[in-house]
Amino acid sequence: MANKQEFWGQKTYCLITGASKGIGRNFAIEFSRKFASNSLIVLLARSEEGLLETKNLISKANPKVKIVIHPIDLGKPDPELFLKVIQSSLENTGVKPTDFELSIIVHNVGSVGDVSEGTFKMSNVTKWQDYFTLNVFSVACLNSQFLKVFPEGSCKRRTVINVTSLAAVKPLKSMGYYCSGKAARQMFFKVLAEENPTLDVLNYSPGPVDTDMVAEVVSNTEDAEIKEMFVNLKESKNILTVDQTTKRIIDLLESGKYENGQRVDYYDE
Amino acid sequence: MANKQEFWGQKTYCLITGASKGIGRNFAIEFSRKFASNSLIVLLARSEEGLLETKNLISKANPKVKIVIHPIDLGKPDPELFLKVIQSSLENTGVKPTDFELSIIVHNVGSVGDVSEGTFKMSNVTKWQDYFTLNVFSVACLNSQFLKVFPEGSCKRRTVINVTSLAAVKPLKSMGYYCSGKAARQMFFKVLAEENPTLDVLNYSPGPVDTDMVAEVVSNTEDAEIKEMFVNLKESKNILTVDQTTKRIIDLLESGKYENGQRVDYYDE
Repeated sequence: MANKQEFWGQKTYCLITGASKGIGRNFAIEFSRKFASNSLIVLLARSEEGLLETKNLISKANPKVKIVIHPIDLGKPDPELFLKVIQSSLENTGVKPTDFELSIIVHNVGSVGDVSEGTFKMSNVTKWQDYFTLNVFSVACLNSQFLKVFPEGSCKRRTVINVTSLAAVKPLKSMGYYCSGKAARQMFFKVLAEENPTLDVLNYSPGPVDTDMVAEVVSNTEDAEIKEMFVNLKESKNILTVDQTTKRIIDLLESGKYENGQRVDYYDE
Repeated sequence: MANKQEFWGQKTYCLITGASKGIGRNFAIEFSRKFASNSLIVLLARSEEGLLETKNLISKANPKVKIVIHPIDLGKPDPELFLKVIQSSLENTGVKPTDFELSIIVHNVGSVGDVSEGTFKMSNVTKWQDYFTLNVFSVACLNSQFLKVFPEGSCKRRTVINVTSLAAVKPLKSMGYYCSGKAARQMFFKVLAEENPTLDVLNYSPGPVDTDMVAEVVSNTEDAEIKEMFVNLKESKNILTVDQTTKRIIDLLESGKYENGQRVDYYDE
């Protein structure tokens, strides 16, 4: 990929989902620190309170970045609303897509799904639909609207980041929704990359990070082994911090050492 | 896995979806040929006409096998209806789950999805939901009802076969629904295998077989390369026949040379 050495420091439009806490919040803060003045960061999540806190933290990290927050339930995807959210983030700050050198979308939103039932009990179709609507279909929908606003040629580089997981490639007991959802979502972004060689697509697997999701799995999993695995991870201090995984992706984007659409895990060399 | 050498020739209960044509029909006919007398094969698909034709062909291949057909739209999954379909297939032929040595479910049903739009246009959530409901959620739902009727200990061996695809592991342009759906479905069955060591789960990828699906892709794909790939496959005669891929899976099941949940492709050694 050309110009990878220049990834950071550009005038950037960056949209991040699930930005009210955890990995999404930390990416938002640390990415912003690297952006040129008058970059624009757009934060989506359900919790307005969480978004406001992320916004405060960004303001301290880089006061020269413009910040737009938009509380929204991504589990109820609406293509027209998504388009409006993106367009209004530009209009309300008086900018155009072509004003930016780099545009980034970070698909970080995600839920772990019900881990209290085994796959052999997963017969509730509405539950499946709800899970995939938030974790896959909404992501694809938002992505398509983002690319409508930032079509080929709108800025020097367009980067699409999907937050994937070990679960996309490794079956984990009691995590049927999460594993199949992550597998589908990662594959979707690989097809996107295959179809669009001028896009820069990265499937980033953040490793086992100490977030609310891990706590949720520990509390609710029906599988003793999975529970023990996460408990041990936490106790052994081998679990990663959000800072560690954020540093890893920042370095990765700077180095540009990945193929278009590639899955890169925190632990990959 | 114990007793793999005895796979064929047992008294078998076998349910196959998408059995009205193509790979599903051929699996049904050739599997039946291998079953012991008084085995029961249950054929599901939308087309009653297609199912009747499959039934006729099975009768000729092995007159000693009982055949139940049930026209059904698997795109509208209903756990209670699925349970009733399986239970009534037993009741109406006067048998119980424990009468069988082997029970098999073959998840063959599948659609290719809309190949006329690229992933960057895939913003219609209803279209996503419909695609995944048929290709993933309905499959999981039917599988769970099958395992309810055939719980652990109900017969000597329980085999779950998922018809997967190259598309589950390789992104193919214009095939965003198909690739992400196959990836999700294959992962679901890997989690099932992980959770249930007493089940025998096989993700079988039939290779490029000359079916209606290939014709559909050739007619409708928006991608010239993908079209050419399939056209060349057909013209070069490198495309497989349903007989070839059926022979491959029959041999594979007989040899038992796969790990539980493993993906095996036609071309794998």
